[in-house]
Amino acid sequence: MALKKNNPASYYIKGIQKGDVAILSRAITLVESTRPEHRALAEKILAGSIKRTKRSFRLGITGVPGVGKSTFIESFGKEVLSHGHKLAILAIDPSSNKSKGSILGDKTRMEQLARMENVYIRPSPSGKTLGGVAHATYETILLCEAAGFDYILVETVGVGQSEVAVSRVTDFFLLLMLAGAGDELQGIKRGIMEMADSVVITKADGSNLEKAKSARNEFARAIHMLQAPESGFTPRVEICSAIENTGIKNIYDLLETYQVFAKSNKYISAKRKKQQNELLLIAAEEELKNAFHSDKKVLRKLKELEKKTILPFVEAGKLVKHFLK
Amino acid sequence: MALKKNNPASYYIKGIQKGDVAILSRAITLVESTRPEHRALAEKILAGSIKRTKRSFRLGITGVPGVGKSTFIESFGKEVLSHGHKLAILAIDPSSNKSKGSILGDKTRMEQLARMENVYIRPSPSGKTLGGVAHATYETILLCEAAGFDYILVETVGVGQSEVAVSRVTDFFLLLMLAGAGDELQGIKRGIMEMADSVVITKADGSNLEKAKSARNEFARAIHMLQAPESGFTPRVEICSAIENTGIKNIYDLLETYQVFAKSNKYISAKRKKQQNELLLIAAEEELKNAFHSDKKVLRKLKELEKKTILPFVEAGKLVKHFLK
Repeated sequence: MALKKNNPASYYIKGIQKGDVAILSRAITLVESTRPEHRALAEKILAGSIKRTKRSFRLGITGVPGVGKSTFIESFGKEVLSHGHKLAILAIDPSSNKSKGSILGDKTRMEQLARMENVYIRPSPSGKTLGGVAHATYETILLCEAAGFDYILVETVGVGQSEVAVSRVTDFFLLLMLAGAGDELQGIKRGIMEMADSVVITKADGSNLEKAKSARNEFARAIHMLQAPESGFTPRVEICSAIENTGIKNIYDLLETYQVFAKSNKYISAKRKKQQNELLLIAAEEELKNAFHSDKKVLRKLKELEKKTILPFVEAGKLVKHFLK
Repeated sequence: MALKKNNPASYYIKGIQKGDVAILSRAITLVESTRPEHRALAEKILAGSIKRTKRSFRLGITGVPGVGKSTFIESFGKEVLSHGHKLAILAIDPSSNKSKGSILGDKTRMEQLARMENVYIRPSPSGKTLGGVAHATYETILLCEAAGFDYILVETVGVGQSEVAVSRVTDFFLLLMLAGAGDELQGIKRGIMEMADSVVITKADGSNLEKAKSARNEFARAIHMLQAPESGFTPRVEICSAIENTGIKNIYDLLETYQVFAKSNKYISAKRKKQQNELLLIAAEEELKNAFHSDKKVLRKLKELEKKTILPFVEAGKLVKHFLK
């Protein structure tokens, strides 16, 4: 999509405010760009848009490939829409940095949802660092909210780095699991399980239903062994079948219960404030490192030092002093 | 130990060169200190000492509590001494930052070694960051080498952060394991296992011997599934009993074989050069972060921003620009 160069920030701000998804999409492309002139315009659009952010719910969803995320989101998304929400789905795919290609991919894999009204589907670039992953996603969430989307779903593949980023930009983190997955898989997921606010066991249908039920009990025990989440909300384990459309409403209700709970004890606003401050620090540290590593004096000095036998901790101190001078 | 204020760097450099362990100890205390005047003196001592560093072997040893590290080091240390080496043992204990207390502790737990000649035992402070752990240990290694210790053993408890640091300052990383430890334990150790250049199964005696032998086969299979180490040296799995003193000589021989191998293909010197450059970058980034977080302008601005609703990635950029100005 070509960006119209001459449109000022106000054009985007107004368009987003009206809920124009074409303009929203172009604004998101600006937010994702690293070109300084795009970035400058994006910052103006963001500054003008956050004032109009509606009350929203930000839901992170993760699960390993094969867990049935797309099918789940298709069913769950319809449930969300049936309650009158406007739904934005942001997909972080760490395996691809090409957003253009995967837009089509996402629309194909959520075929029915993609054709419905009040739905906006957009892949989010992944990036290499925690701040990198979080950056575009966080700002995209803000723009979607400004455009009136009040149910924001951030989806990622359960493989590590991007989960941490998603848990830093969402209100609730939902982990999709398969019944009967091997111990090894559970081992890999331990860290992610600790981040989860609740677990959903997918594909609980046909001959798989009994396995899913016993997995539910097992996970319920496992999850209670972990530290209680800060929110004070006890994580639940639900089962569902996206194909038979069973259990989906329960999950929607669980999330409603959470929102009532976490809004009444002001946890969601406190969490968002905390996330904002954490993101500020993460971003500042990454920015600082980038400035250091792209500094010509630093690069020259590093090249020089690499060849010699040096005292690394002594030279590090000198190098930083030199950089900051 | 009180530091004699008036001794110049040359006093320490000469004392270390003569192998005076009392002076060596005081120099290490200076290296560990964060007081600027100590640090300044330490840097002079280091600069004067690295020129005199002998050829040495730096061996990292790790294993969970209960694996029998002290007993192993006591037996293995005697083997090392019997070959005419001077042995320095540096222990990193992440559970304690008080080095004074644990010196006595280490000497008690390696009672026989502590009383022998040509042995120097010293705890190394642990610190909170990778650079923090590595810093004092790395510089202590250099001083010990300057004092003529040619076999440097760096010991740590197998729990994570400090292993990474130890693998960055040693030539060879030896992992001690118990036979019959549960799957869960092995899961925790997977990351550490990938760093190991070889594995030793301890307590292979009495009724435990058969279990140890089958664990050896199991680990040998597991370790060959992992990526081959950069050195090109195929990791081995040995069993030993420190109490019956069996297998200890094999381990010494394994390490001799490694040294011949890794010196002939120049891997050790290449690895040390690489470690030096990695430590330089790690230390520089930590130094930079510390400078940022202790900057008064930054602290004031952060406090101000914490209260507001902001765009964290936008403010991060401004904050860093402000800091670097």
